Order: sequence, then C-alpha cells, then structure tokens
Amino acid sequence: MSGMEQRVSCIALSVADAKRARRFYEDMGWRMSSAGREIMPLFNANGFVFILFDRQRSAHEAFGGAIPPEAQACVDNPPAFEGITFSYVVREHEDVQAIIDHAVKSGGRMLSAAKEQPWGNVSGYFADPDGHIWEVSRTGRTPLQPDGNFRIGD
Amino acid sequence: MSGMEQRVSCIALSVADAKRARRFYEDMGWRMSSAGREIMPLFNANGFVFILFDRQRSAHEAFGGAIPPEAQACVDNPPAFEGITFSYVVREHEDVQAIIDHAVKSGGRMLSAAKEQPWGNVSGYFADPDGHIWEVSRTGRTPLQPDGNFRIGD
Repeated sequence: MSGMEQRVSCIALSVADAKRARRFYEDMGWRMSSAGREIMPLFNANGFVFILFDRQRSAHEAFGGAIPPEAQACVDNPPAFEGITFSYVVREHEDVQAIIDHAVKSGGRMLSAAKEQPWGNVSGYFADPDGHIWEVSRTGRTPLQPDGNFRIGD
Repeated sequence: MSGMEQRVSCIALSVADAKRARRFYEDMGWRMSSAGREIMPLFNANGFVFILFDRQRSAHEAFGGAIPPEAQACVDNPPAFEGITFSYVVREHEDVQAIIDHAVKSGGRMLSAAKEQPWGNVSGYFADPDGHIWEVSRTGRTPLQPDGNFRIGD
C-alpha cells in the first residue's frame, strides 16, 4: 500500500432533512439504491456511491464524536459557500438551462443562468435544497464518453 | 432530456493555494492530467474529473459574478465543516490508518483515528490542507469491485 489510488468511493452530502433531499434527487431523475434507507438514501453513481446523510451525524462521525465549536457552528448554520462544486456535463447546449429549470421545479435554486463562457463552454449553476452547488455545462472541447463518464487529457 | 442521469462529471474542491493543494494530492499518490494547469490542477478519477480550483474564482463562477455577502464571508473564511465528505474505500483493515498517516505526512490533518465502527467497518478521517474531509474505510460487507469502483445494492 503506497498512497491512494486515483478514485473516490463515496460522496456524502450532509443534509438537514434526508426525506426532502431524497425527494429532490428523485425528482431530478435519480433512483435510490436498493440498499438505501430512509435515514440514509444511497444512489449508485458512475463508479461511486452518492449518499445523503444527516448533517449532525456526519459531523459527529468525521470528528470522532468531539466536534470543535467552530465546526459545530457550521453544522448548525450551513455555510453559504461550501467550497465544493459538482459538475454535470450534458450533451446539448439547450440541456444546460433545462436541467437548471428542472432543479428549480424540484425544490432547488438557480444560482446563475446558462451562459456561454469565454472558453467556449455553456454553463450555469443551481443549488440543491441544502445549498450544495451543481454546475451544469456543455463543454466546448471535451465531450462526454459514450458511457457518460468524463475525463480531460491523459 | 428528462432530468439528470445518475452521474457526476467533475468535482471541484476550492483551494486557497492550488500549488499546495496539488502537492498534497500528488504526495498522496495521484498523478495530474496532461490537461491540468498550474492554476487548475486536474486529476482523472474513476469516471469523473477531480479539480483543484481557486476559492475566490470558484465562488465568482457559481454566483455569476454576484457573490452574496454571506457567501463571500465563507470564501474568505473557509467553514470548519463544509458538509461534504469524500470516502476512500481500502482493501485491508490496516490500510485505513496507513492512508491517514500518509495524509498527515503529506500536509493533511487527522480528524479521527482508524476505529472499528459498530456496523463492522473500520474507518477514520483526515482533512486535506484546505480542510476538505476524507473518510478512509474498509467496509465490512461491501467490497470494492475489481476495477476499484464502489457500489452498494442495486
């Protein structure tokens, strides 16, 4: 064992209300794993598991039960900008705004409308009901792979 | 186009110093994509691209240039708990603490030591130099797939 392989196994988004968060992702078109539970919805994504997990429990686990006060403050009042953004690459330009509109109808919030960027992408942003940020983009130069995976360069 | 497919194309971690962040992930054993640049290191992971991106620019893009004051405060003072956790599943129990030790040597910080959890996993946590949280775990019931991908249930 010499360090980490270049992969992620799970991504857990902490949420205030697992039912509400699950409903949002289901409304967006996702299907919960047979192993998902009401208190911890799981979605099998492309190579990893996407998890919705209670915010208090998530912090409790990360800090081994001893949550520092400054972290507890963030648990109680989720930050307005977390510092992690997910991107979802679509196949057609018009899908960018369509996905953002779909997110708004499902209980999310538009952060910025679809717009052509100087580097040729069309992209826009929405936040899920807990404020987790998603970019939706149609990349100018790098298409999705046929199986929906995405990679840039070698 | 009816909603989102169940996949993520990119995960961007906002960082204070892209060089420092890149050095951390390279020290952990990752190799930058040929398309990565000094100001935006890219790593091709399992099905998606893992990106290290300047914190100010990341917020600027998400909010289309109009960053709300409460978000700007989070940009300037990264939250002590973001609310997103990455998991890295290892193959052997002893790898859990070894990866955490490796992270500490590479400039990260241990949040909680490897420990057997009530549900049979062995897991522990570290934070990267920007405070992004990683769980390292050996799952009790669900092994990694041979290609390193991870899924739970159907």
